[in-house]
Amino acid sequence: MGGENRGVDLGTRFVKVAEGKTKVVYDYDADHYLLYFKDTITAGDGARRDVIEGKGVINAQTSAFLFKLLESSGIETHYVGMYDERTMIVRKLRMVPVEVVLRNIATGSIVKRLPIREGERFDPPIIEFFLKDDARHDPLLNYSHMEYLGLFTRREAEQVEEVMRRVNDALYNFLLSKGLILYDFKLEFGRLGDRLVIGDEITLDAMRVRENGTLRILDKDLYRKGADLETVRRSYEEFLRRITS
Amino acid sequence: MGGENRGVDLGTRFVKVAEGKTKVVYDYDADHYLLYFKDTITAGDGARRDVIEGKGVINAQTSAFLFKLLESSGIETHYVGMYDERTMIVRKLRMVPVEVVLRNIATGSIVKRLPIREGERFDPPIIEFFLKDDARHDPLLNYSHMEYLGLFTRREAEQVEEVMRRVNDALYNFLLSKGLILYDFKLEFGRLGDRLVIGDEITLDAMRVRENGTLRILDKDLYRKGADLETVRRSYEEFLRRITS
Repeated sequence: MGGENRGVDLGTRFVKVAEGKTKVVYDYDADHYLLYFKDTITAGDGARRDVIEGKGVINAQTSAFLFKLLESSGIETHYVGMYDERTMIVRKLRMVPVEVVLRNIATGSIVKRLPIREGERFDPPIIEFFLKDDARHDPLLNYSHMEYLGLFTRREAEQVEEVMRRVNDALYNFLLSKGLILYDFKLEFGRLGDRLVIGDEITLDAMRVRENGTLRILDKDLYRKGADLETVRRSYEEFLRRITS
Repeated sequence: MGGENRGVDLGTRFVKVAEGKTKVVYDYDADHYLLYFKDTITAGDGARRDVIEGKGVINAQTSAFLFKLLESSGIETHYVGMYDERTMIVRKLRMVPVEVVLRNIATGSIVKRLPIREGERFDPPIIEFFLKDDARHDPLLNYSHMEYLGLFTRREAEQVEEVMRRVNDALYNFLLSKGLILYDFKLEFGRLGDRLVIGDEITLDAMRVRENGTLRILDKDLYRKGADLETVRRSYEEFLRRITS
């Protein structure tokens, strides 16, 4: 079922609730949304944007697989099942507009911001909260900012950090068993009643993964660093094949 | 005792330990440094620099007065006494290269970084930690960065926040009694044995103060916003006169 144009069908059957750079949210039923994965890839807070045919399917499948992995470790996510090959059925969370990043190994923005060199290992991992605000380039937040802005209380932020560490334990070891090193990952959380539940996605758009030994990059850093789109597509496909086999 | 050129004398009698943008540290005796206040004023991480004759004397006197005020509230600082009119005798702390900022009312960098408007009141105050690193423009730090970089443990950061709140309670109310509103202030801390003690200075270079009612600016924002140097000097002098009378 479902093809490249299924998104068009969804739009005629369901009310669009929100559209982001790479996904569309539709109202499915009283308790569920549909999360449609587009074929877009972006970088630089949306300044660069391209289309990679089939990326939406790969990312939906990748995210579904990793959400199920987390659920099997007792970690609650919004994932319910697939509507079609690039569309998830998810529970309706009231999303908190914060990106939560856990870093095992230094790369990316942190080596520019702080006196930390590429490749330094963080043990325990570094956890950071960023406001989702492209115009302000997703500024770093501390507990006191999050309290004031009504995002997370200090207690909730600490709970989120604990979930991040549990996710890391599960993901890091799983990926290592596939010959892959998890450098860092980003999650977003939402409220379901009084619980904080993982929403959004877990894909190569939102984590950095390198091959153990060669340190070959598999994730969106390929795109950020200017690799051609077919190389990016093949890498996302390889990652899905490796984790599911 | 002491005049404009006393700094030259100090250099011949004591070993210079460190020199910053506005102060010089000399080795005084086994347990004490001398902290000499220069007449310089700077902004933009040192990009702008000027000399305001007599500013060093005013700031040394201001800081001494406010350190004594804190000590009388039971808050430990490095202040011991004056060596001359622009030079303090202070206890030797091992300084932590972090600027700790407490904000009662929004102004300055926070209204650029976050979706917060000039003049919003923070209750409770917002507390922020910044790495002292001009080349990186003093990046914001969270607990997990400070642990990793060996600056403050999470427990120490929480202790520092508690001291910041106590300082705010003392300073805010004192300044209000002088018809002044304390918008924000910055402190630096150092280790003395296993205690964290307030070091550095408390002056109009490191806090924002406006006149109650008129909201006339008295602090270094005058210089940042381009006021002439004599206006800045007179404002610093007025502040010292108001707090000491």
